[in-house]
Amino acid sequence: MPLVRIDLPAATSTADVAAVSHAVHRALVELFNVPEDDRFQLIGRRQPDELVCAPRYLGIEHSDQVVVVQMAVSPGRPVALKEQLYARIAAGIAGSTRFRADDVIINLVETLRENWSFGGGIAQYAVQDRDRAAGGAS
Amino acid sequence: MPLVRIDLPAATSTADVAAVSHAVHRALVELFNVPEDDRFQLIGRRQPDELVCAPRYLGIEHSDQVVVVQMAVSPGRPVALKEQLYARIAAGIAGSTRFRADDVIINLVETLRENWSFGGGIAQYAVQDRDRAAGGAS
Amino acid sequence: MPLVRIDLPAATSTADVAAVSHAVHRALVELFNVPEDDRFQLIGRRQPDELVCAPRYLGIEHSDQVVVVQMAVSPGRPVALKEQLYARIAAGIAGSTRFRADDVIINLVETLRENWSFGGGIAQYAVQDRDRAAGGAS
Repeated sequence: MPLVRIDLPAATSTADVAAVSHAVHRALVELFNVPEDDRFQLIGRRQPDELVCAPRYLGIEHSDQVVVVQMAVSPGRPVALKEQLYARIAAGIAGSTRFRADDVIINLVETLRENWSFGGGIAQYAVQDRDRAAGGAS
Repeated sequence: MPLVRIDLPAATSTADVAAVSHAVHRALVELFNVPEDDRFQLIGRRQPDELVCAPRYLGIEHSDQVVVVQMAVSPGRPVALKEQLYARIAAGIAGSTRFRADDVIINLVETLRENWSFGGGIAQYAVQDRDRAAGGAS
Repeated sequence: MPLVRIDLPAATSTADVAAVSHAVHRALVELFNVPEDDRFQLIGRRQPDELVCAPRYLGIEHSDQVVVVQMAVSPGRPVALKEQLYARIAAGIAGSTRFRADDVIINLVETLRENWSFGGGIAQYAVQDRDRAAGGAS
């Protein structure tokens, strides 16, 4: 379900791109209960003037090497779980790449389960939810 | 009203890029009642490691040639209509390009009508809705 | 808080890219009360066939030189303020670059305050809101 857009400096090594991708997915699997195979990510390599970030905001210092992670996810997860997700993503990236945890910017965009098709033109979650509702009513 | 982001492999031919763009727009016009001229699309050509997709999810097999379509649209369309849209987009792309229907990933993000400006710094839909409300009250 | 995606023609001069970035941020600071340091933007340079825009919609003529500004922002701002924002962005861009105001396309996507982390894996707004709620109860 998550569609993850990861934007990072064009000069990032291939290994670090893969490590960022992996860290974000691990956090989603472990905390948001996302299935292992539910992995859809778009990586954007950005030139220096295409990744604009203030040097300091809310007490956090940003270098010119930031990673921006914007994820479309289904709505309704509790705030505490979202907080755990952010912490896990930032720690996972900082622990496996040259990026600093302070340079990981995260934004969730919540969108209904019926708003997804994972191939074949089928709204898989809408079908699942209908099947469950039918089962629950029987 | 839809702002459509289409991400696909950088190696996609120019003809196939145009055909994907066309297929998505046709489906929106025919099913979501989008005006013919309401066409705003951003195409992203992605290197192989920038388009991350699990090989199988929810029973659908994905190749390494996927198309990801994320659309900001106005809220409130019925689920059944969304399902028709996904089916039409996937069939339209598969029928006119080398992409498989199973490799078409779709996500809708719903956003209020007042959240759009189509040029000139005017919130055209907010103006329309206000005019309609005023007309209704007269 | 805003995460701003700005997509424009790849042939745009570096000076015009910077001026667009600046104009959007000024409008957010002046009208949406966004802190000066709350600046997070992703610029996308697009080839001609990657920026698809109908030549005319809702009475606005579009050239092949459009700028698309999509912003994730916190929800709840009044419509009148959004309208002022669009007007300010379009005027700011037209006043400082070669782009026409009619070629500035804007879309807001609203997302909860708890859906942000600005570094360090911390949900800064969720923490702020919790602190305020605790203070208000004392």
